[in-house]
Amino acid sequence: MDLENNLFMIPGPVKIHPRVLRVMSKPAMGHRTPEYRAMIKEMTENLQYLFQSKNEVTLISGSGTAGVDCIITNLIDKNDKGVVVHNGKFGERVFEMVQFYGKGSNVKGEYGKAPDLDALAALVEKEKPKILGVCHNETSTGFTNDAEKIAKIAHDNDALFVLDGITAIGGIDVPCDKWGVDAAIFGSQKCVAAPAGLAGVMVSPEAKKVLHDNKSMYLHLRKHLDKWMKESDTPYTSAIPLFLAMSEALKMLKEETLPARIKRCARLGDACRAAATAAGLELFSAKGFQSNTVTAIKYPAGVADDKFRNILKDKHNVMVAGGQSEMKGKIFRIGHMGICSMTDMCGTWGAIEATFKELGYKYEYGKATQAVVSYM
Amino acid sequence: MDLENNLFMIPGPVKIHPRVLRVMSKPAMGHRTPEYRAMIKEMTENLQYLFQSKNEVTLISGSGTAGVDCIITNLIDKNDKGVVVHNGKFGERVFEMVQFYGKGSNVKGEYGKAPDLDALAALVEKEKPKILGVCHNETSTGFTNDAEKIAKIAHDNDALFVLDGITAIGGIDVPCDKWGVDAAIFGSQKCVAAPAGLAGVMVSPEAKKVLHDNKSMYLHLRKHLDKWMKESDTPYTSAIPLFLAMSEALKMLKEETLPARIKRCARLGDACRAAATAAGLELFSAKGFQSNTVTAIKYPAGVADDKFRNILKDKHNVMVAGGQSEMKGKIFRIGHMGICSMTDMCGTWGAIEATFKELGYKYEYGKATQAVVSYM
Repeated sequence: MDLENNLFMIPGPVKIHPRVLRVMSKPAMGHRTPEYRAMIKEMTENLQYLFQSKNEVTLISGSGTAGVDCIITNLIDKNDKGVVVHNGKFGERVFEMVQFYGKGSNVKGEYGKAPDLDALAALVEKEKPKILGVCHNETSTGFTNDAEKIAKIAHDNDALFVLDGITAIGGIDVPCDKWGVDAAIFGSQKCVAAPAGLAGVMVSPEAKKVLHDNKSMYLHLRKHLDKWMKESDTPYTSAIPLFLAMSEALKMLKEETLPARIKRCARLGDACRAAATAAGLELFSAKGFQSNTVTAIKYPAGVADDKFRNILKDKHNVMVAGGQSEMKGKIFRIGHMGICSMTDMCGTWGAIEATFKELGYKYEYGKATQAVVSYM
Repeated sequence: MDLENNLFMIPGPVKIHPRVLRVMSKPAMGHRTPEYRAMIKEMTENLQYLFQSKNEVTLISGSGTAGVDCIITNLIDKNDKGVVVHNGKFGERVFEMVQFYGKGSNVKGEYGKAPDLDALAALVEKEKPKILGVCHNETSTGFTNDAEKIAKIAHDNDALFVLDGITAIGGIDVPCDKWGVDAAIFGSQKCVAAPAGLAGVMVSPEAKKVLHDNKSMYLHLRKHLDKWMKESDTPYTSAIPLFLAMSEALKMLKEETLPARIKRCARLGDACRAAATAAGLELFSAKGFQSNTVTAIKYPAGVADDKFRNILKDKHNVMVAGGQSEMKGKIFRIGHMGICSMTDMCGTWGAIEATFKELGYKYEYGKATQAVVSYM
């Protein structure tokens, strides 16, 4: 596979625009300088635009998981209760964190299916937890949870609502203030199409009030928020080239506009689902909950995951993802967030069709690509 | 149109690989240094590999036309005869140059049709010219002339054979030594997928012997060849970043191997032609002569060139070329040389199909893309 010239269709890291790549090659910038603070000030506005929120925001130099950790560790102390509703690998990770730091309970949904929100409401009512957490868009299964409903369950029970929006925010409509999201996280390498290595974090005044400040020096959320919002600065040296890249990626998102990007992702999702269906394939996740930023597709009988993805990579220079953990071998996943285009989708399905043909999976070849074209 | 993230399918400049782009951002290199000469030495070997020739080679800092000019002005003095066989815009340019510098005569073929080679043989026999020139691959019409036959006509009449291989060499098989090509030119922005601004030149010992040395200071071909071949150097300051890029592009070509690249272009040509046919379109050039690096396709009735290409550009981020001069509005042209991939071709035809649909040109939508997929 050509690592620098291909169709990069995994659900993150995603393709990075040359404009964004280029700013990372700027000479070293000092982080205690007016230009650094000017960059942060501009990013603050763009991050709030992205979160659809007037709340405090910041960037954590670390992965998306660092962002979730930064929220959970500062909200949940060992005697704090947290409820997590999850139906996939990343929701499980949120639950693990709550258990790790405090007292966790959960509603576990089947992978790819809508979790039982009545059971959730009952559990939250019973537990009266400090937080209710969910992984909004399950990257592992291409499932979008009904975050608005879950937010309501939280508020009805005076719990703070924590949203892991790592592959949602910037690709799916997540109106944080409208829904009353108290803490949200996105990953830099996902819908904003920046390089991996940063987590964007948003915190409501209600959540900020009850942060524990004794849990982590590096992930000291209040310090991060205060330094950022009051001084347009960071408590520690940040990953400066990634900040430059994020700054540019956010500008590009704003140029496209958030509604336009969300609409584009929706159309890519429609096209991807139509292509899968046209090829006689089954989507992994339930209808009505299928994600617009990542599509999980069941392998047809007789098609082996490793062979399929190796041919796609080695012969067609197309990278898609397989399933994780218990999903391994059962599904493949196509990412369609960030700056992914419909021509990318068309080329991807062309390659998938050729690969299915090579592997002997039979259906009316050409129909999948044709389905994509109908969305172009 | 996004100028940095698109499907760039014009017949040159073509898409440049990040590896090639990256070397141009190296700090300034001196051109009278051992590292400069080492780079030239390595390029010499790779250029000879590309030309399939043991002859002398060099790079001219200038466009492909500078390369052709450099050959013609040094071979044709005002009393020298040159015959040119041409059937397109770029062949005409070769003829113009011969007329400009000396005494030109020609066999003019219809655009997109094979020129009358019997008439050519008769003319060359009568004129006994110093050179016989041809534009091998007519970028303007997607036509590949039978250079081997034309070379034979030249040799049968003791004429030097000059081959404008600007969009041929590196994409179509041009075995210079086997055919006895006396001078050949390629453009950096074409089949080798380097940036625009350089012309590669190859000259046989027979041609070198009879070069005029009184015609141009900058395009003094003998000086260029001697300096390059004897000292691994250039007579004047070269376009150094472009040299770095060319050096990397040639390495990439060698890694792929020339036969593999030629085969890849042939397959891209097959796929592009099959797609056009599947969409009910007519190819501009005659069967058996259709180019494997650029395909010219007639517009169907009712499809306006500007509208078609504007939608492709603005809506789908796909760039194809229109017709030039008298071909304007009649054809569009798709380049498929260099590092163009089959997924690029698939996405391009997806966008073309969507555009045709939008413009009301009717056929069985999806069939063109399907045709490309059958070559993937």
